[in-house]
Formats: sequence, C-alpha cells, structure tokens
Amino acid sequence: MEKYLSVIELEEAATSILPKTARDYYRSGATDEHTLKENKRAFQRLRIRPKCLVGLTDCNLRTTILGDEVSMPVGISPTAMQKMAHPDGEIANAKAAEKEGVIFTLSTIATSSIEEVAKAAPQAVKWFQLYIYKDREVTKNLVLRAERAGFKAIALTVDTPFFGLRRADVRNKFTLPQHLRLANFEGHLATKIHSSGDGSGLSTYVNNLFDKTLTWDEIKWLKSITKLPIVAKGILRGDEAVKAVEAGCAGILVSNHGARQLDGVPATIEALPEIVEAVKNYNVEVYLDGGVTTGTDVYKALTLGAKAVFVGRPALWGLALGGQAGVQRMLNIFRTELESTFQLAGTSSIADITRDMVVHESVYSKL
Amino acid sequence: MEKYLSVIELEEAATSILPKTARDYYRSGATDEHTLKENKRAFQRLRIRPKCLVGLTDCNLRTTILGDEVSMPVGISPTAMQKMAHPDGEIANAKAAEKEGVIFTLSTIATSSIEEVAKAAPQAVKWFQLYIYKDREVTKNLVLRAERAGFKAIALTVDTPFFGLRRADVRNKFTLPQHLRLANFEGHLATKIHSSGDGSGLSTYVNNLFDKTLTWDEIKWLKSITKLPIVAKGILRGDEAVKAVEAGCAGILVSNHGARQLDGVPATIEALPEIVEAVKNYNVEVYLDGGVTTGTDVYKALTLGAKAVFVGRPALWGLALGGQAGVQRMLNIFRTELESTFQLAGTSSIADITRDMVVHESVYSKL
Amino acid sequence: MEKYLSVIELEEAATSILPKTARDYYRSGATDEHTLKENKRAFQRLRIRPKCLVGLTDCNLRTTILGDEVSMPVGISPTAMQKMAHPDGEIANAKAAEKEGVIFTLSTIATSSIEEVAKAAPQAVKWFQLYIYKDREVTKNLVLRAERAGFKAIALTVDTPFFGLRRADVRNKFTLPQHLRLANFEGHLATKIHSSGDGSGLSTYVNNLFDKTLTWDEIKWLKSITKLPIVAKGILRGDEAVKAVEAGCAGILVSNHGARQLDGVPATIEALPEIVEAVKNYNVEVYLDGGVTTGTDVYKALTLGAKAVFVGRPALWGLALGGQAGVQRMLNIFRTELESTFQLAGTSSIADITRDMVVHESVYSKL
Amino acid sequence: MEKYLSVIELEEAATSILPKTARDYYRSGATDEHTLKENKRAFQRLRIRPKCLVGLTDCNLRTTILGDEVSMPVGISPTAMQKMAHPDGEIANAKAAEKEGVIFTLSTIATSSIEEVAKAAPQAVKWFQLYIYKDREVTKNLVLRAERAGFKAIALTVDTPFFGLRRADVRNKFTLPQHLRLANFEGHLATKIHSSGDGSGLSTYVNNLFDKTLTWDEIKWLKSITKLPIVAKGILRGDEAVKAVEAGCAGILVSNHGARQLDGVPATIEALPEIVEAVKNYNVEVYLDGGVTTGTDVYKALTLGAKAVFVGRPALWGLALGGQAGVQRMLNIFRTELESTFQLAGTSSIADITRDMVVHESVYSKL
Ligand SMILES: Cc1cc2nc3c(=O)[nH]c(=O)nc-3n(C[C@H](O)[C@H](O)[C@H](O)COP(=O)(O)O)c2cc1C
Ligand SMILES: Cc1cc2nc3c(=O)[nH]c(=O)nc-3n(C[C@H](O)[C@H](O)[C@H](O)COP(=O)(O)O)c2cc1C
Ligand SMILES: Cc1cc2nc3c(=O)[nH]c(=O)nc-3n(C[C@H](O)[C@H](O)[C@H](O)COP(=O)(O)O)c2cc1C
Ligand SMILES: Cc1cc2nc3c(=O)[nH]c(=O)nc-3n(C[C@H](O)[C@H](O)[C@H](O)COP(=O)(O)O)c2cc1C
Repeated sequence: MEKYLSVIELEEAATSILPKTARDYYRSGATDEHTLKENKRAFQRLRIRPKCLVGLTDCNLRTTILGDEVSMPVGISPTAMQKMAHPDGEIANAKAAEKEGVIFTLSTIATSSIEEVAKAAPQAVKWFQLYIYKDREVTKNLVLRAERAGFKAIALTVDTPFFGLRRADVRNKFTLPQHLRLANFEGHLATKIHSSGDGSGLSTYVNNLFDKTLTWDEIKWLKSITKLPIVAKGILRGDEAVKAVEAGCAGILVSNHGARQLDGVPATIEALPEIVEAVKNYNVEVYLDGGVTTGTDVYKALTLGAKAVFVGRPALWGLALGGQAGVQRMLNIFRTELESTFQLAGTSSIADITRDMVVHESVYSKL
Repeated sequence: MEKYLSVIELEEAATSILPKTARDYYRSGATDEHTLKENKRAFQRLRIRPKCLVGLTDCNLRTTILGDEVSMPVGISPTAMQKMAHPDGEIANAKAAEKEGVIFTLSTIATSSIEEVAKAAPQAVKWFQLYIYKDREVTKNLVLRAERAGFKAIALTVDTPFFGLRRADVRNKFTLPQHLRLANFEGHLATKIHSSGDGSGLSTYVNNLFDKTLTWDEIKWLKSITKLPIVAKGILRGDEAVKAVEAGCAGILVSNHGARQLDGVPATIEALPEIVEAVKNYNVEVYLDGGVTTGTDVYKALTLGAKAVFVGRPALWGLALGGQAGVQRMLNIFRTELESTFQLAGTSSIADITRDMVVHESVYSKL
Repeated sequence: MEKYLSVIELEEAATSILPKTARDYYRSGATDEHTLKENKRAFQRLRIRPKCLVGLTDCNLRTTILGDEVSMPVGISPTAMQKMAHPDGEIANAKAAEKEGVIFTLSTIATSSIEEVAKAAPQAVKWFQLYIYKDREVTKNLVLRAERAGFKAIALTVDTPFFGLRRADVRNKFTLPQHLRLANFEGHLATKIHSSGDGSGLSTYVNNLFDKTLTWDEIKWLKSITKLPIVAKGILRGDEAVKAVEAGCAGILVSNHGARQLDGVPATIEALPEIVEAVKNYNVEVYLDGGVTTGTDVYKALTLGAKAVFVGRPALWGLALGGQAGVQRMLNIFRTELESTFQLAGTSSIADITRDMVVHESVYSKL
Repeated sequence: MEKYLSVIELEEAATSILPKTARDYYRSGATDEHTLKENKRAFQRLRIRPKCLVGLTDCNLRTTILGDEVSMPVGISPTAMQKMAHPDGEIANAKAAEKEGVIFTLSTIATSSIEEVAKAAPQAVKWFQLYIYKDREVTKNLVLRAERAGFKAIALTVDTPFFGLRRADVRNKFTLPQHLRLANFEGHLATKIHSSGDGSGLSTYVNNLFDKTLTWDEIKWLKSITKLPIVAKGILRGDEAVKAVEAGCAGILVSNHGARQLDGVPATIEALPEIVEAVKNYNVEVYLDGGVTTGTDVYKALTLGAKAVFVGRPALWGLALGGQAGVQRMLNIFRTELESTFQLAGTSSIADITRDMVVHESVYSKL
C-alpha cells in the first residue's frame, strides 16, 4: 500500500479496479454533481496563514470526541454495504479504525452486523449511524443492539427522508449483489433490497421503509430509549443546528451526505462557519464530512471550528485496494499530512490552533 | 423514453438526430452565445439551504397560475414551428402538457393552428403567445381566435421588435421546410417565410411583418379587444416590470427569449430577484424561462419569487425524440427532480418555501 | 466576403492565410499576452439591461466626432505597415472607411503616405496618428503635411516611449519586407527599419528614433504648429486623462495599444468609466479601442461614456481577406450587430442610451 | 542562450533535459501544488496603471539592499544542491550573479562550499542561507565561516522546522547523487543524505538534523555570534513580520519556500501588502520570492512595497541549460522585461514608483 501517497491516488486506483456498479454507487453524487465537485473545491478557496519559530514540540494530534480519546481528529463516516468493496467489508474498516485509534461509524444498512463489528474491533470507538424506519420497533431494536454492543454514539442521519437521485444507480438498476445481505436485519428487511424495479433497488428499499415524516421531536423519543449521545448528521444551516441542539443532540455533523442527496447545496466547509457561530453558546461538538481529501483540508475544518472531520469515500477506496491495510494506509496518509500541516503551520497540537490561522481567499482581493 | 434520466441527455440525444438546419435553429442563441451559457451557469451559482426533520408530508407540487390549477409549476414556453422536430408538432406538445397537467403556450408562428391545438388538447391550460403584426387586423384576429378557442392568457412577447442575430440561421439560410406552413395564417402570411433572401428567411419574415414601433400603450388596446389576462414575456429589468404592470399586465414572464435576441443580457435567474422586488406591491404573478434544466433550477426560481417557470428547448428535445411521449418524459424528469428537491430541502409544498432557502454562492465567500 | 458573419470569423480566416511574420506581428500582444485576452474578456463581464416597447424608430447610428459627422461610432485605429496584409494597404483601408462613412486613422509608420491616402479617399474623415521623433523637424513636417492634406485630427500616441516586448517579433527578427517602405519618410527614416540586428527590426527603429523624454508640455508645442485638434491616444487612468485635457487635448482615446505595449495593464473597457468620470466637467470627447469585437462591445463602451470606439486588428483581418471589400465587410458586420443591439436594447439612437443600460456582472452576485 | 526570450521558455527547455529525479526535486511543490500555481496566478490578478509623457530618462534599476548596491532589484534565492543541475553548480550561479551585479544566496545544503563560492565570485554580493542544526556548534561554524568569507547577510529560513511533503521526491526516493556531497559539511553531515530509507532521503536528513524547536529568541543568539544582518526568510503574516523585526531582523523575505513547504498558504504576492503595512514604522527592508516569472511580476512586487524580489527556480532552469551563461540569460530576461515595464509604466527609477501604480483586478469590478 505504501506506493499510494495521497487519497487522490487511492481514489484513482480503486475506481479503476472496482466493478462498474459498485464504483458508480460509491463515487456518484446527486443529479448533476455540482456539489460533489464543490465539496472539494471549496477547501481550495481557503488559505492557511502559518506561523514560524513558535517553539514546536512533537506534534500531538490526540483529541477527545464526545469524551472518547482518539489518536487524531479524523474519523470514518458511515457508508453502506462495504462488502461490495472488499469481502471483509465493515469488519476490515472497523479493525483499521481500531488499529489507528480513530472513530468508526457503522451504517444502518451495512453488510456486517452491529454484533459482528463489535466483536471484530472491540477496542475501536464505534458509532452507529441510524436511519429511522417507519416501523419503530425495528428502529428501537437497532439502537438497543448498538448500545448493548458497546457503540458510543448514535449518528442520526437527518438529511435522508429518502434517497437522492443518483443517475448512475438508476441506470445500473443498482441493488446489493445476491450473495450479500443487509446484515443488521432479518427477513425481508435484509433482502428486499435485492429486488429492483425499474430503477435503483436501494432507492426503492429506502423510500418504502424509511420514515420521512420525522420531526425534531424524534430526538426526544431516541433519548427515551438510549443513554447514548445523539449526533445529528446532515446539518447545513445554523438555525437547523440550533434546533438539533435544543432537541437534545450532543453533536452536529455538518454533512451533505457526500453530495449524494440534493445537488446545489453548499459545500460542507462553506456551511461550517455559520453553524459553529450559531451553536457557540451551547455545549455541543461540531464535526464535518464531505470532500475531505488532504491533511490541509482537515486543518482548515479544525480551524473553522470543527472538533473532528470524517471521511466516507476515502475509506471505501482504501478498503477496495487492500481491505484493512488499505484503510490504514488511507488513515496514515491523513496522519502524515496532518502532522506536516500542524507543524508547518506552527501549531503543535489542536489547542494551538486559533481562528486566525485560516482565511477565505477573497481576503486577499482587498488589497 | 425511460432511458433518458435528465434533460441534458434529452438534449444530447435530440441534437444528434435532428437535421442540421432544425438543430441549429432550435439550439442557437444570439451572436456569441454568452448569455446562452450564462442562462444555465447562473443557476449553478445559487445554493439551496435545506432543512431537516420538518415533518414532511407527501410532496405537493400543485399550484395555480392566473387562477388555473396545474400539477406543477413548470410550463411549456412558446417555440415556433415545432413540426420541424416531429410531424405531430405543437399537437403532440399540447397533448403532453394536457396529460401532465401543465400549461402549454402556442407560438404565433406555429405549424399547428390555434384551432387544431384547441381541438387536440381541450383540457390543457393553453396560453397563446402573441407577436403584434403591423397589420392590426391580423393581430386582432389571432387574439379573438385564441380567446374563442379557450386559451387562457395572451403571452405578449415584448423583446422582439425584430429577430436577434443567429449566425447559424443566416449561414443555413434558414426557412420553414416547403411542406410546412405557419398554420395560424392564410396566404402570404403563412408562406412568405419560405422565400429566403441572402440570410435567414425567418428573420426577413419577422422584420417585414412585425411592428417594432410598439409602446406600452399597446396593452390598453389589447385589453380593449380581449378579456384574457396579458402576460408580458421578455422582461429583464425591475422598472420595465413596473411599466408592464401599470400598463395592465397580469403576469410578467422574465425571459431573454432563450438568449436568442440580444447577447450579453443578464441570465434570467440573475434578473429575477430585482423584478420580484420591483412589483412586490402589485397584484401580479412573475414567471421565468431560460436555461431551466433541472429540478433544482426550478426550485431556485420559485424561491427567488417566481410563481412558475417555463421551458422552451427541453420540450423541443422531448418532441424530437418521441413526440408526445418525449415531451411527457421531459416533464416527468422535471417532476421527479422537483419532488426530490422539495423533499430533500424540507419543503412539502410551494407554500413551505421561504426566501432563505436559497442564497448566492458569494455569501459563502464572506467567512 | 458575405460568408463571414462575425469579426471572429474574419480573424480566423485572415490568420490562416497571412504569412507567419505578418500574422505574428499583427496578432501579438506584449510578453505573456494576459491583457490581450482581458481586452476581450472584460467586455463579457458587462451586462446590457434592455428595455421593451419603447416605440422604436428606425435605428440611427449617426454621430459627430470632433465636429465631423460619421455614419456610426466605430472608427479605424492606426495600425502600422498595412501593405503586409494586402498590396493596397492603407489606401484600401481608407477607401473602405470613406465608403462606410467612418473615421480612418493613418499611422506615422504607414506603408502609404499621407498624400497618397488623402488623394485616394478625399471624402473620408481622416486622422493622423503621430509618433514624435527626436528630430522635431521630422515631426513638425508630418503634422503640417497631415493638416495640409485635409486630415482632421492628430492622434498623438502617448503610450509608446518605445515599443513593447513582443516575443514573436523578436523571434522572427521582424522587419518590413524589402519591397515596402515607410511611406511618410524619405531616406534612412523610410528604410532603416529593414536592417534588423538580433531582434525585432521595428523595435530597434522605434527605440532609436522616437523621443521617449516627452512630457505633457509637448501638447503646447503641437498646438503651436497646428490648428488640428489633438487626441491623446493611450490613456488608462483618470488622472492622466485630466493631465491630457489640461494640456490642451480635445479628445482622449482610452487605449492600451491593443495590449502590445505593457502586459498586465487594465483592459480598456475596465479603464473607461474612471476616465469618463475624471473628465466629466471638461469639454472633451472620450473614445476607446482594444478588443472591440462585436456590436454589443461597442454598445457597452458607448453606455459607459465613450463617444466612439475604434478597431485596429479587425481592419487588418478584413484587409488581409479582401482589401477594401474586406474592411467594408468588417465595418458592415459591426453596423449590423450594432443596429441589432441598439434596437433590441430599446434605444433607437445614441441619444437614447442612458448609463443604466449596462452593469458589471458582479451586480448580479448581490442577491 | 539568446533563443530563450522568457523565463517560461527556460523552464520548459530545462525541465525537458533534466533527469527525472532532479527535475522533480526542482519543480515540485508541497502535496497538491495549489500554492505552487497560485504563486504565479496571483500576480496576474494585479493590474499596472501606467502613466504617460512623464519625461522619461534612461531607465535606472539600481538600488541598495542592506546597504549594498545592486544593478537591479532581482536577486537569487537559495536553492539546495545545484550541481544536480550543472557540474558547476553554485559556482556558476554565483559568478552569473557577480557578473550581473545582483545578490546571490548560498544554501546551507549546497553542493559547493562557502569558501569555494567566495573564491569564485569575490565581487558578488553574497548572502548565506542558514538552517539551524540541532548541533549549535555546527550552526555557529557555518555562520562564522560565511562572515569570514565576506558574505553580507544571513538569510535565516524560518519556514522549515522540517521539510514539506513533496510526493515526487518520496516516490523517487530522492537523495543526492553519490558523486556529490553537501559541501559545507564534513563527514556524516555531508553524506548522510545519501542513505534514503523508504522515502525522500533529503527529508530524512532534514528531519533528523534540523532543530524544529526554535523560537524568535534564536535571533538574539545569532546576533551574539555575528555582526551580519539577519533576514527572516519565510514570513507570510504581518504579525510574524513584526515579531521578526522586534527580534532583531534587518530584513523580511516574504516567501513560502517556493510553495514547497505547506500547500494552501497564500501566494507570496498576496501576503506582501499586509506585511509591508505591518512593519511600515520599523527600519526594515521587505523582499519577496515565489513565482516571480516576468518583469511585470517584479514591478508589481516593488509597487506593493518590496525592496527587491528573489528567484529560485528560474536560476535553476538557467543553470541547467547553460551554467553561468544560462543564469545570466535568465537575469537578462528579467532586466529587459523590467526596464520595459519601468519605462512603459512611466517610471524611470525605483524612486518614481508610487503605490497607485498597481491595483487588484477586483477594483475594476466596482463599476
Ligand atoms: C457509498 C456511500 C454510502 C453512504 N452510505 C451512507 C449511509 O448508509 N448512511 C449515512 O448516514 N451516510 C452515508 N453516506 C454518506 C457518508 O456518511 C458521508 O456523509 C460522506 O461520504 C462524506 O463525504 P466524502 O465521501 O466526500 O468523505 C454514504 C456515502 C457514500 C459515498
Ligand atoms: C427554437 C425556439 C423558438 C422560439 N420561438 C419563440 C416564439 O415563437 N415566440 C416567443 O415568444 N418565444 C419563442 N422562443 C423563446 C421561448 O419562448 C423561451 O423564451 C425560451 O426558449 C426559454 O429558454 P429555454 O429554451 O432555455 O428554456 C423560442 C425559443 C426557441 C429555442
Ligand atoms: C499590428 C498593429 C500595429 C499597430 N500600429 C500602431 C501604430 O502605428 N500607432 C499607434 O498609435 N497604434 C498602433 N497600434 C495600436 C492600434 O492603434 C490600436 O490601439 C489597437 O490595435 C486596438 O486594439 P485592437 O487591435 O484589439 O482593436 C497597432 C496595433 C496593431 C495590432
Ligand atoms: C529546488 C529548490 C531548493 C530549495 N532549497 C532551499 C534551501 O536550501 N534553503 C531555502 O531557504 N530555500 C530553498 N528553496 C526555496 C527558495 O529559496 C525560494 O524560496 C523559492 O524557490 C522561491 O520560489 P520560486 O522558485 O518560485 O522562485 C528551494 C527551492 C527550490 C525550488
């Protein structure tokens, strides 16, 4: 894996070996994919303003997230059905996270079950990503199993009343390959996804089973059934973040679902500052995912107020190329780049970062 | 038709099968076609700011336009001479609109007559697009026939004292093919278009017959001969919109004629907010056409104050590919994308949309 | 010539037939040619805001420039050595201008003499472009001959203490072909240009003979020897325009010498508004050249305060393709496009144009 | 060498003949190389506002830097290991600088020693670029030798606690070729660089030996061991510049190390104005390097307040193509372009330049 020196290279290599259906599913964004591009480009419009001769100590990337210590502020976002990328799927991914000391988030619609993942990576800080099913017993069951299995938080995805329009998936009549199943479920909930109608089978599954009528009151219900902290995943506005916190969420994951839901929404790094500002007087942690590709991206997000960032596709590319080793390679690329950024920016640890370390490029147009 | 998943694909497929003369006529914009590109690009500079967990109900796209109920706020703009795209021409287009419950607008210089269209699509909400001929009897006759045939509004095109410079049409010496005629007319008004001099035959026809000396007083005259509401089609400035309303128009169609008249004018979505602001204290509806290609485009226009949008070329592409079925496919693509946008933005109906749902991308440069 | 429908097409056709040395000389801008591109692009960043139903009359493009009536506000800028483009050179160009009723400006370093041009195009409104030679007798002689020959103004080029760095000319060791001469001169002043050292022969000629020590006092001297009005050609700043006027100039030609002198200066249409503003309380006319390619460009310049625009290269392209007929074709393209722009913008004559007809595109980013 | 007319051409020619390892090492920037591109592009976003008829005298580019007279305000930045470009390496480079009357800066990790360079180019104004080794005796020794050898300043590089991530170097396992040595050192300090582990050998060397714990107090120590003025090389913020000056530096070299350290930092010409402003009340000179490619770039930097600019890679390209003659050619290209810029901008000498000669392009969007 050492020959890969950047996440971009992992992406290029992985997309060249994955079968078309899986590649398209992993890579695509919603409709015209403008936001997919902007998620990356928006990082490039920010400038880091480095300091010198600050008396650097060894670089310390450690931080805590919802009280759990992690080796660096980069975690793994939930992505569905990882066994299409590699036979070891979520297991390999979780083990990589465990080994590297970062958070792993398991998707509701994973191809490995809560219990399998818990058993394979007992020391990992694991979060469970929740989709709320119309059938609340099904939903409750998932939450209780995650709590029982030692998961540390529920990442409630709030941007998915149903699935975005991803043209390649419709064209491919995308479904989970027959030999795989949605491992957190039994019976038709696990396999219904196989039967595709005239479009994306996944989409049909989601639209039939997920509850799109949810309101922020749902958080209350969730808190009534679990002690785990709730992270609202998919927030892009300050006022929505406030609603999430006031409803009882302990964390806000600024996300546009990897630009897979609604095209034309802001890049996540664009949305971050407004959200950090909106909740600054609350006791809540803010995270970000979407388009994070290099160590400087991570640094920029931290400077703008994120407690950590998460990556979705980068883990899939690593997984596809080398299973657990591939995901570890991906994490190590981030670690190396992030250490380099910290030190060259003149900050030895997260505590050293101040808001003035990053500005928008437009600041330099006002000569 | 189901293989086409986006309007862009319809456009690509249609332009590859249309004969050059028709394709050029349909596709072209004025001179250097900067505005043609900007009509689309300007939409991409807007960002949708979605809300979550709003308690979605089933998506309801219904609305009323000048009192008539339609199934969604997307109508069909008038485009001339549709039988070049498909033998069924305007008939197929109108029937598609009828089936899909949207407005169909018939061009003055159509290849199907007012009466033919009325008969073929009696239930459709039909508008008649009017060019004012120097010969006012000819003009009056058109209006009275449209009213008699059950059309619901007169869309008076105000941006066409004569035709814009479209180089491809000049080069092709564009005229209506010999087997077709301008069906709303008899005699030389119907066929004079066939004789092309040394440039576009259409242009010569228009320049000879249309009255370019019009003023806003014309609205008064129009209102004296018909009870139908008048929509001013082709407004790009707030002060002009006020003039239109004060002259008696019931609707403003913000339009640059598909960028076919004057290159270098604003994209329509750029012009929209100023116009909505200018007429906000008047009892008038504002619509937009020009470059609308996806459901998110429609949503953006609605958020900025349009009561509905119209599409010109997309209907031609659908028509060319599949007649009525092709136009219906086009409308269904918009419907699917618009429903997806509504729901993923957290708005179940048009009434839910508030002005804060969309901002210009430059908002995100002010970190 | 009728097959050419735009200046861009003239340019493409002409550059494909001209010999490399001439083509490079005509086409090039200084060093990296950023300003060469910006001269054109800057026009595209402006938007025309058209009015409708204004009661158009026939389009009237006539105007007066320094008291002389012209058929439209588009004149021909001085460009050196036109016989390289066509055997008839400046004669053909001047005759085209005469025929079309526009201003023709003869370069000091032309391949046809003042007297030859005067004789060939007696009715043309002719200006003489002046370079001031170290030898003031030479200079005075030129001015007196121009006045005597019926030229109507002296366009004093103020941006050329010596020639800009044009790499292609250096590489080509550009000189005037042996069979041609600088027709306004006798002896070595006419032929010295033939001997090229190790770079551009033209450049060597200019650097040796032109007087770079000039100050604004020179205008006084000029006015002491001629009654002709002086136009300062090559102004890019408001404060410089004021200096020119206060020194006695009757006109300001906002120009960057076709981006051939100093790369990195503003596009001329960028510089125009500041200059118009600076001299608004003076009795002076402001013109512009540089990158004018379409009728909408002309219209934008007029709206921002130019009394007329001039074109340099477009005349060379016309000349190369068809001699006098080619230049006339070029002028007719501008006339057609300008008429179209006037009428579609809702302005029948120059007097109808108001400053609100054009805005910068950035206005539309402030939603 | 005369066939090369621009630095861009030197770059193209040199990169086509250099062996891959050297070419990659010289050319690369850190990680994604955004800043590498921006270093050049940012210059293009500035506009020069030329004056006319100012009464030019012969162009005088002479200036003094830290009291030493130079023939123009363009010096040579330190770049490591120049014998990979040409057998004469730093010697040729220094002799070119001597011949052309500009500053030459020798890198700590050069392939020619302090004494060799001093002997070869005794008349050159030479600076010594210092990296501070953990072993302070080693460091002190370098400084004392430079002072003794007649170097005029110490350029202390403050942006390199360790080396940036340059992917090509890692991939190439970049080390100094076996036949070369770091000529300022004896024993392992000179040769350890040869042994590459699993990545860039240079990087390993640097990370092992350089002291990254430095603070601004180091300046005091440096001043206690040498009388030479200290220039802080690698400043990108106003507040950091103030720290440098208050710590005792006589000069600030605004630099991002040729975009080789941290990607995503500002282009140097973007950072310059803030730094000039911050130290305007101190007795300190400000310089800039990074992306300087043409004479207009130099002029822009001077206008924004730089006393001089330096170039790194351009000297390497010249060196690779022609040894001393190649570097002289590079300097002469700058001289020619700079003279042209000075005169065409209407400034005969550095004293003539005023701050209003340059503005950001965005000024021209506020019509
Ligand atoms: C293939 C794929 C599957 C995903 N599945 C889920 C999911 O099951 N649940 C969820 O909340 N988010 C899901 N996401 C969104 C990710 O959690 C995350 O927000 C996104 O991938 C971040 O953007 P990035 O891929 O650019 O890092 C998925 C994303 C991808 C690419
Ligand atoms: C081929 C074609 C013919 C048109 N004919 C007419 C017409 O007869 N009358 C009219 O008012 N507008 C006409 N238009 C303009 C359309 O009504 C509408 O404003 C425009 O097409 C909207 O832009 P769009 O094509 O990007 O959707 C025509 C447009 C096209 C493309
Ligand atoms: C080939 C060429 C020769 C020129 N020669 C002269 C000249 O002799 N005197 C002068 O004042 N300007 C000269 N110019 C500048 C033109 O007068 C004019 O400013 C410029 O061409 C306008 O830009 P455009 O070519 O984009 O229209 C020359 C320009 C070109 C392209
Ligand atoms: C190949 C190479 C080696 C360099 N070595 C050093 C060095 O040893 N010490 C140092 O302070 N800067 C070094 N630099 C940075 C240069 O001094 C200078 O800051 C940079 O090259 C300026 O950018 P430019 O190359 O775009 O002109 C090096 C740069 C390059 C390209």
